[in-house]
Amino acid sequence: MHRHEPNVNSSAPLARDKLLFTPGPLTTSASVKQAMLHDAGSWHFEFNALVASIRSRLLGIAQLSHDDGWEAILLQGSGTYGVEAVFQTCVPRAGKVAVLANGAYGERIGLMLTRASIDHVVLRTAEDRPVDPQPLSELLARDESVTHVAMVHCETTTGILNPIEAVGRVARSHDKVFVVDAMSSFGAIPIDFERCGIDFLVSSPNKCLEGVPGFCFVFCQRQRLLACEGRARSLSLDLLDQFRGFERNGQFRYTPPTHTILAFDQALNEFHAEGGVPARGARYRANHQALCAGLAELGLRPYLEPAVQSFIITAFPFPADPQFSFPEFYRSLSDRGFIIYPGKLTQVSTFRIGTIGRLFPSDIHQLVGAVGHALEEMRRPGARG
Amino acid sequence: MHRHEPNVNSSAPLARDKLLFTPGPLTTSASVKQAMLHDAGSWHFEFNALVASIRSRLLGIAQLSHDDGWEAILLQGSGTYGVEAVFQTCVPRAGKVAVLANGAYGERIGLMLTRASIDHVVLRTAEDRPVDPQPLSELLARDESVTHVAMVHCETTTGILNPIEAVGRVARSHDKVFVVDAMSSFGAIPIDFERCGIDFLVSSPNKCLEGVPGFCFVFCQRQRLLACEGRARSLSLDLLDQFRGFERNGQFRYTPPTHTILAFDQALNEFHAEGGVPARGARYRANHQALCAGLAELGLRPYLEPAVQSFIITAFPFPADPQFSFPEFYRSLSDRGFIIYPGKLTQVSTFRIGTIGRLFPSDIHQLVGAVGHALEEMRRPGARG
Repeated sequence: MHRHEPNVNSSAPLARDKLLFTPGPLTTSASVKQAMLHDAGSWHFEFNALVASIRSRLLGIAQLSHDDGWEAILLQGSGTYGVEAVFQTCVPRAGKVAVLANGAYGERIGLMLTRASIDHVVLRTAEDRPVDPQPLSELLARDESVTHVAMVHCETTTGILNPIEAVGRVARSHDKVFVVDAMSSFGAIPIDFERCGIDFLVSSPNKCLEGVPGFCFVFCQRQRLLACEGRARSLSLDLLDQFRGFERNGQFRYTPPTHTILAFDQALNEFHAEGGVPARGARYRANHQALCAGLAELGLRPYLEPAVQSFIITAFPFPADPQFSFPEFYRSLSDRGFIIYPGKLTQVSTFRIGTIGRLFPSDIHQLVGAVGHALEEMRRPGARG
Repeated sequence: MHRHEPNVNSSAPLARDKLLFTPGPLTTSASVKQAMLHDAGSWHFEFNALVASIRSRLLGIAQLSHDDGWEAILLQGSGTYGVEAVFQTCVPRAGKVAVLANGAYGERIGLMLTRASIDHVVLRTAEDRPVDPQPLSELLARDESVTHVAMVHCETTTGILNPIEAVGRVARSHDKVFVVDAMSSFGAIPIDFERCGIDFLVSSPNKCLEGVPGFCFVFCQRQRLLACEGRARSLSLDLLDQFRGFERNGQFRYTPPTHTILAFDQALNEFHAEGGVPARGARYRANHQALCAGLAELGLRPYLEPAVQSFIITAFPFPADPQFSFPEFYRSLSDRGFIIYPGKLTQVSTFRIGTIGRLFPSDIHQLVGAVGHALEEMRRPGARG
């Protein structure tokens, strides 16, 4: 536990930063942040070697091999930039994308395709149900113009875990390019690229790998990417050109967030020291279980059925108590040093609690205690202090 | 002088990070980097207040007023993303951009317009001459389809300073939208938006404002931006949607590089403490003068005439000495703790030395000493050690 810095922008007398129970930016270790105390030259050979090492280590985490044609490409910007970069770079002018959606991040894929004037169809499932490969199968059987299939692995709108293997099997059987947004799952939930038939997978340093935000990364087959020559509709989001930049001289084409990348290198060290994907998944699962058990005692139960709920982030419907006010609840937890996340569901009022980042079950127990106090305060105004 | 951290990724026995004599990423103060030792929640009200304050302080530095309709919009990604975002968001389908170019960054604007299928014409000047408003004036007189005029203020290919006021006057007289890439000049060279007729200006926290890289910012007239509704070709690079996100709830639409933004807040504190644009310009000018005087004694003279040379970055042709090897020269300076920048000119072999960032004339004197030693070593192999 390395979180004893003073809180930078708060007058509250906290001995450490507020803990972030969100889907990111996350609470990270002090040593990850301390890695940013250096200025690196982005053209310099030492930095280039670091970038090469990060790209290689990412492949290792994904259990992919460069010799089998796989690449890990870093791109400046948030995770959304990486997802959009895949489509802006890879879908041909006459292409069409089938998007499976059951939340805000699936819908965002539809939105970015609309903005880029890329033909697409969105196959929707209710927010509390996993996306469904069956309508996709029917669509692909009748609409030969579809070239790409896209979905979100863990939809953080609810925390639902979507079936990438079942969908990937359908996409593969129709020979479609399969694109997965694994932003909040990569690094804690094992992903078998081969079994899932994944062609492009996008994730972020600032989720389960516990780095800081500032860039994203895309896994893809080199040949699949090289075949996209001439399709890019954007320079900044041109993933093929970005790859060629790394191939040419080991460098980012445009100024990279050097400090963020130094932090990520340290985050990868700590990821491996902890025991990689299994260990990280186990810690997050323990966090999630402690959260659900603790909040159940306070009468709060997850929005989703356990069978489809991930251990990444959990949505809780507001308590029935008419006194409940989310802004007051949020503020009360913030004053106690805990930052939670608002809901994003369209039909049900929820708040969300993330269980990823440098958080341990002991932190969850403290949060649960604070939630109890906050609920109590709202029931008995004046109880506070 | 606050640079006494150990060098993170080097086995060299340096007491501090290597100094970066580049156009960015730059050497920054220790206190700017230390501001990154905190995890902030991007949805949290404290962070939103910080973002609002940064946007407001940026307007202040530009001597622009929110009451007069100006906005400063932060966008994730490198500076190039910000320049591209202006075009991807603002140029109508039937629009056409006149680009004035005398180096790689002007050419890059042409490239991003090509990639986005935006009609454009590039008016070129030799790399050692400022861009010329006269051919633009002639073009605008004969081609009414041009809607936008774009140029780079300080072209870091050479370090040449281009005449934004003269070009802006021509653009304004023909009622064209004027877009300026002021990446490496904003914050050290005064820019009068009104006199120059600037509609959109893009810059970066990691240049004269001495923050760390990870996002960029765009100044624009609110009404000018709102008039671009429906034109955006990208979601991530949709500047209008980004602005609307800030208006809606004070937040970035997508995960911002929170640590980079904390660093920028501290960088702005230090910028004001130093004395703002005049003081920063004076320090960089002193750096540049010390550099030119010192290297002249070693027989190295700038590629450009003094009349058009900025104090931001300076290109030096390779010495005539047939023994000169740039890789060897670079390595020798790196071993001594100084990182310089390669050339980017098409016709002449040069190296470049940036004089911005947390650098002082005393640092320049040390660099000049190291250059002398490096040149000496190349003349007398075996002189080293």
